[in-house]
Amino acid sequence: MTTSTHTQPADATRLIIFDTTLRDGEQSPGASMTQEEKIRIARQLERLGVDVIEAGFAAASVGDFEAISAIAHAIKHSTVCSLARANEKDIRRAGEAIQHAAKGRVHTFIATSPIHMQYKLRMSEDQVVEAAVKAVKIALEYTDDVEFSAEDASRSEMDFLVRIFDAVIQAGVKTINVPDTVGYSTPEQWGERFAMLLQRVSNAQSVVWSTHCHNDLGLAVANTLAAVQHGARQVECTINGLGERAGNAALEEIVMATRVRKDLFNITTGIRSEEILPTSRLVSTITGYSVQPNKAIVGANAFAHESGIHQDGVLKHRETYEIMRAEDVGWKTNKLTLGKLSGRAAFRARLDDLGIQIETDEALNELFARFKILADRKSEIFDEDLHALVSGHHSGHIPKRFILNAFEVTSKMGQKPIAHLQLGIDGQEQTVTAEGSGPVDAAFKAIEALAQSGAQLELYQVNAVTSGTDSQGEVAVRLNLNGRIVTGQGADTDVMVASVMAYLDALNWLQTAGKANPQTDEVM
Amino acid sequence: MTTSTHTQPADATRLIIFDTTLRDGEQSPGASMTQEEKIRIARQLERLGVDVIEAGFAAASVGDFEAISAIAHAIKHSTVCSLARANEKDIRRAGEAIQHAAKGRVHTFIATSPIHMQYKLRMSEDQVVEAAVKAVKIALEYTDDVEFSAEDASRSEMDFLVRIFDAVIQAGVKTINVPDTVGYSTPEQWGERFAMLLQRVSNAQSVVWSTHCHNDLGLAVANTLAAVQHGARQVECTINGLGERAGNAALEEIVMATRVRKDLFNITTGIRSEEILPTSRLVSTITGYSVQPNKAIVGANAFAHESGIHQDGVLKHRETYEIMRAEDVGWKTNKLTLGKLSGRAAFRARLDDLGIQIETDEALNELFARFKILADRKSEIFDEDLHALVSGHHSGHIPKRFILNAFEVTSKMGQKPIAHLQLGIDGQEQTVTAEGSGPVDAAFKAIEALAQSGAQLELYQVNAVTSGTDSQGEVAVRLNLNGRIVTGQGADTDVMVASVMAYLDALNWLQTAGKANPQTDEVM
Repeated sequence: MTTSTHTQPADATRLIIFDTTLRDGEQSPGASMTQEEKIRIARQLERLGVDVIEAGFAAASVGDFEAISAIAHAIKHSTVCSLARANEKDIRRAGEAIQHAAKGRVHTFIATSPIHMQYKLRMSEDQVVEAAVKAVKIALEYTDDVEFSAEDASRSEMDFLVRIFDAVIQAGVKTINVPDTVGYSTPEQWGERFAMLLQRVSNAQSVVWSTHCHNDLGLAVANTLAAVQHGARQVECTINGLGERAGNAALEEIVMATRVRKDLFNITTGIRSEEILPTSRLVSTITGYSVQPNKAIVGANAFAHESGIHQDGVLKHRETYEIMRAEDVGWKTNKLTLGKLSGRAAFRARLDDLGIQIETDEALNELFARFKILADRKSEIFDEDLHALVSGHHSGHIPKRFILNAFEVTSKMGQKPIAHLQLGIDGQEQTVTAEGSGPVDAAFKAIEALAQSGAQLELYQVNAVTSGTDSQGEVAVRLNLNGRIVTGQGADTDVMVASVMAYLDALNWLQTAGKANPQTDEVM
Repeated sequence: MTTSTHTQPADATRLIIFDTTLRDGEQSPGASMTQEEKIRIARQLERLGVDVIEAGFAAASVGDFEAISAIAHAIKHSTVCSLARANEKDIRRAGEAIQHAAKGRVHTFIATSPIHMQYKLRMSEDQVVEAAVKAVKIALEYTDDVEFSAEDASRSEMDFLVRIFDAVIQAGVKTINVPDTVGYSTPEQWGERFAMLLQRVSNAQSVVWSTHCHNDLGLAVANTLAAVQHGARQVECTINGLGERAGNAALEEIVMATRVRKDLFNITTGIRSEEILPTSRLVSTITGYSVQPNKAIVGANAFAHESGIHQDGVLKHRETYEIMRAEDVGWKTNKLTLGKLSGRAAFRARLDDLGIQIETDEALNELFARFKILADRKSEIFDEDLHALVSGHHSGHIPKRFILNAFEVTSKMGQKPIAHLQLGIDGQEQTVTAEGSGPVDAAFKAIEALAQSGAQLELYQVNAVTSGTDSQGEVAVRLNLNGRIVTGQGADTDVMVASVMAYLDALNWLQTAGKANPQTDEVM
């Protein structure tokens, strides 16, 4: 096996963790993030010990390009990667976006299944191979760490896969990724596919084999692990299994399965598992995508036998019902960090510690003021609260057409609630009153009476509160305006105020000229 | 292959779907259900086409016994099953509970792993085999449809499994279940275990082999499917993957994987897949366990490529990104059913249609009055609203110490909210005012000021709303009082009123003498 300059381990027992929360995860409807939020997640991924961070799709938009570039500057230990279709423009944008990375990778892809080549690309096999090889060669002008993916590999013909992989290895790729784009495979089949590829492709041993699985049939993690058992040494995954449709393979499940079943897998990762839960919570807070209680590893009940009824059984002998410890993945480590007496320096230090960098003194002052208001109303401030505070703040990266000045709504049994609202719209103050079937309905009707956005509400969600009712309510509002989907966030100890903030945040997103969702139909 | 009287198919390509939402699912913290709710879910499971409904654990409590018995009366097509430990008392209770079932099964289990036998049972191998055989023989006095499970089979020794399975087949069981109790196995290993068992156990062909997998490492569905590929013809599963810790294998994922990949599995089930989503929603509403957006099959985003940005790509050729159709699992079939002009007869007919049976005219009148109030505030009434209405009602199966008479709370930016509350407690009216950091906090503090329950709030959750803000807010409140965990539900177009109703519902549950959670440490 030759050694890759960047991420390939000399040791065949080392599994490379490639996180695509910021690229494939962001393609979830309404999961778009600001640049500041992406950097925050990237820093946390680095802290978690992820080997490769796929930071975005540089050619998708100026915003994506700049976010990847900013992450490339900010991250020191992990490799920073940009996705690119197999065309010159995409590749050059990706190459430029990662040029300042300590370790940078270009990840190019093209579809290889008959159905995609015929109906989407309208290209012949020869044309597809030619495009792939050309793309790899251009990418090599920017970095020697180039990855190639065969989109829809699970429905591609084996002979053609072998042919195109032979060609791109010849051209100089370091990593070959085999995605199950539509989540169609089963573990047995997926393992066999890897075994076959490693056997048939020339110089297969000179590259790292990678897998990227979708969860449409609930098999993403199992398929990923089957690939690992048959030679894959890179896994593409996301925090909480975020991603298009039913999502990607969940990083936390893959990592803990290989750890708990080290007897079977005999591999190690660079993941610091106690950072798993904080990372899960950060991604959930920022994207507005909740985690269900019975989600493995990071769901609220995943270790509930420890805290509840099962204590007797567990106490008899720990291992009777326990195959891993909650502490190992970061449960019970949520520490009280700040209170109402904490000063500006302590506040800033804690933000630094969480990987949250505030760019201007003005922004820090505004945040600190909001922190003081929160500390007055909530006795204990946890890391989660700080993340929510910063997420609500949005660091001024999007222009704010709509600003909340005043709001009041009364819930009274047996009466229709009436909301009073005062908004700043383009700098002008406007006031309105609206009735609704509930206080949220009244509040949103009031906003629409002034904003006239015409957007459809697709989702209204209050994050589950698990640590006392004086916690901040975190609300996500998803709006759809002619197919453009955005998610707004709001956090406040008053869930009604948080709801209004989230709706206005979503409206502000809708006003931005940039992309809301970067996806085209040509992504894995 | 011999034919079982009840559920074994003559056809080896038929997969038996054994749903344990009402037993293993109910063991999730706070997922306890009233008898009326259990019957409602059982009827929906029957409509879904489930072969076997595990309705509970008869010996756990009088409530469990009565619920199983009521379900045995109500269900005509599915087999109704009770779990029982391998002792005479448990078995007789189970046998009595199912005695009026059209088709009844007793499912008995005992642990077979060294760690469980040594630390939990404190029994020798000989004692365990003896107990199992005796249990099966007693069960056969009640039904010829007896199932045996070897708890913690994934960590049991193969030789001992073969020995005990030989013995119970000899004793007359029709089904042998092999559970991965702690969610420790991998698909390859699990498939091998089934292949080995089917090869080594005498008369293996005379019984139906069953698998029961937990999801601690995210592999429950994959393990289940691996067992099917190696001879299992019954799968134990739950709706939404509900269950202890990270839950069980999800029925919807297993069924759709075998259907989409019929080329690999070559089996059929009796499931009417278009009932999958309605069943998922009913279970989520009743238990208060939310489904995350990126959950396969039943998550809000599982088919989001159809409605959003990907339409272009999908339209080019449907199959480019689609391996199954949303309609096939019940999406887009939520029909407008009733409005404010609907009369009592239409209301009752629709409830009947949904499998909701209201026992007394008085109860129906109360429900209809609530329906009219709702219809006044919400222009379109969907099936989901009716389920929420009935769930909030709770059919008088639990005594109501706490009754909400009046409630008012105001949210105003920059001010601490004050809640005014009037409760009936044991028939006496009491009034209180309380301040909080938000309206929910104020409301809950007001309740506690009067109720003095001393319970800890473990979870406050608002179900995500996806169909307009005039939808009913469905709130779940989970309380913990000295290790006893209950979940209360509330539904109202005013989410604040729903929150108060949910908290009071939880308090009413806490007052009941019966079990809140049926589990002991001796369950699969």
